[in-house]
Amino acid sequence: MAEFTSKIRTIQWVDNVSRMVDQTKFPEKFEYIDIKTGDEMFDAIRTMIVRGAPAIGIGGAHGVVLYALEGADKFDSREEFVNWLIEKAEYMKTSRPTAVNLMWAVEKQIEVIRNSKSDIKGLIEELKVNGIKLENEDIEINKKIGDYGAEVVPKGATILTHCNAGALATVGYGTALGVVRSAFAKDNTVQVFADETRPRQQGARITTLELTMDGIPTTLITDGMCSYFMKKGMIDMVCVGADRIAANGDAANKIGTYTVAIAAKYHNIPFYVAAPLSTIDTSIKSGDEIVIEERSREEVTHINGKTICAEGVNVINPGFDVTPHELIAGIITEKGILRPDYNKSIAEAFKM
Amino acid sequence: MAEFTSKIRTIQWVDNVSRMVDQTKFPEKFEYIDIKTGDEMFDAIRTMIVRGAPAIGIGGAHGVVLYALEGADKFDSREEFVNWLIEKAEYMKTSRPTAVNLMWAVEKQIEVIRNSKSDIKGLIEELKVNGIKLENEDIEINKKIGDYGAEVVPKGATILTHCNAGALATVGYGTALGVVRSAFAKDNTVQVFADETRPRQQGARITTLELTMDGIPTTLITDGMCSYFMKKGMIDMVCVGADRIAANGDAANKIGTYTVAIAAKYHNIPFYVAAPLSTIDTSIKSGDEIVIEERSREEVTHINGKTICAEGVNVINPGFDVTPHELIAGIITEKGILRPDYNKSIAEAFKM
Repeated sequence: MAEFTSKIRTIQWVDNVSRMVDQTKFPEKFEYIDIKTGDEMFDAIRTMIVRGAPAIGIGGAHGVVLYALEGADKFDSREEFVNWLIEKAEYMKTSRPTAVNLMWAVEKQIEVIRNSKSDIKGLIEELKVNGIKLENEDIEINKKIGDYGAEVVPKGATILTHCNAGALATVGYGTALGVVRSAFAKDNTVQVFADETRPRQQGARITTLELTMDGIPTTLITDGMCSYFMKKGMIDMVCVGADRIAANGDAANKIGTYTVAIAAKYHNIPFYVAAPLSTIDTSIKSGDEIVIEERSREEVTHINGKTICAEGVNVINPGFDVTPHELIAGIITEKGILRPDYNKSIAEAFKM
Repeated sequence: MAEFTSKIRTIQWVDNVSRMVDQTKFPEKFEYIDIKTGDEMFDAIRTMIVRGAPAIGIGGAHGVVLYALEGADKFDSREEFVNWLIEKAEYMKTSRPTAVNLMWAVEKQIEVIRNSKSDIKGLIEELKVNGIKLENEDIEINKKIGDYGAEVVPKGATILTHCNAGALATVGYGTALGVVRSAFAKDNTVQVFADETRPRQQGARITTLELTMDGIPTTLITDGMCSYFMKKGMIDMVCVGADRIAANGDAANKIGTYTVAIAAKYHNIPFYVAAPLSTIDTSIKSGDEIVIEERSREEVTHINGKTICAEGVNVINPGFDVTPHELIAGIITEKGILRPDYNKSIAEAFKM
């Protein structure tokens, strides 16, 4: 498999801080911010300085370390410290309700806390080490996802993607855009169509930025245009990320994904979801059980600080939608591409 | 049928000028601009100060009168004047290539020119009278469309619309939003979901404005959200306008319409097109013959003067798409609701 080196490292534990690309500054600026406290991390996740399910997960794991560093000298006993820290970790999980990776990564840190035999200083060291391990694993997992996915990308394909499931949604490399990177490494005639992804425009602001930085040809389109290009035969496959996948394969992802999936089905274009197994929540049977975060009206009514509509108009702003499993051709994971029946293939992947 | 009085008059011949609402100022300002020359009208259509197929048609008709007023004293003979004026009228048709109403209304003025027996002064008077007649007919036609359409709006329905086929796309009242107005006059529990309609956001900027002005409850959503609300059972019908309809019922409308139509089909929600017969171009057999206008990259890459994406990204910006007839439940015209087979029902409507 050809090796693709991306220029982008989204989040990294450096010198007792969590250093991350500040994604609220796109596309004007590409700059790093150091998150130094647990509460700062909570806000960084909530306000989407860091976003994308896998990157949020690492943010959460780092956040637990930051709280631990803050609390180290504040308690009379190790037990008090541990109880307080677990409470803080549970709080960290609430910073974005839909991203299951956040729960998963914070839970991994809670396991370290519960299993540790070390003193406070030693425990903090173990949390740091585990955080860095999760970072490295994320990149490795994405490369595996990319390489499995590249196998189903046709020669010279144009891949449509929605939102940003890229290097900037993960520690690096990306899930859906990891598939793109691995495919492009083998065949540099592969290209991408990026949906703008209103309301927050992650496709325009983030996907075009990271693909352009890595030299992958990218065309920006508005969300309503996908069917037009599909009908013209200009789209060969769709590949998107996911924020949470149910045991039956139903996949929650950025609002608008479901519409793209329906359009792909209508045009007989394969629609793939690329996500690590940590995104799959086998505790929920179907997408009906996924609670959809409702976000602020201003995301819809304002762009670049200016209002785009009549004052006083109603707004409903669901952050995500659920693509039902019957519209999904395959779920590309680090254990291979899972195919229907997903109840079966997902269960098997977790046993591997 | 209950009478609905809209506050909005989009374009009107007043004191030898064409007075129109300046739609580039939305949503900040609702103000009128007087178009005083033929070239000013050409630019007003091109830059979308006036937009919407029927309103553009009236603009074109007014533009011919404005050229006539300018040319009245410039020629030695009536024949020279008439030849020059027809040339200017043909030029006026090129200001927006997709809107068939523009060709239709300008052609109506050319007929007046060709058939007139009057001197130059008398001919200009005939063109003015015909322009005003076309204005009044447009409103009457829209009210008929509205009343026919209202018959298929379920009690308490939520109607999804895309772009703006409203009072502000016509002389007044509207086509798709004429259906909404007539339905609302009978049943004030009817409400509207308005797609933002990127790239130019006519749904956000114009539809929410005109419906709010007329007191009709309206919810703004982004283009990708339609399927989410359809699945939740929150949308009862879709009603959109059209810029050109082929003899087989294929309908060109604002980019993104086709995506909504596919989503509606997937959820078994009826998708209606509301348009006057003047929008139907029986000279073209199917939508494949409709030339789609490509617009500037800045409409996609910039919003409110700021860039939203990486520099140097590719852009393709088709202004329209074609919804194939098989996705359309009915075409609501001033002669009633046309149903499949459209080749037959359209041909019959033109004979009525």
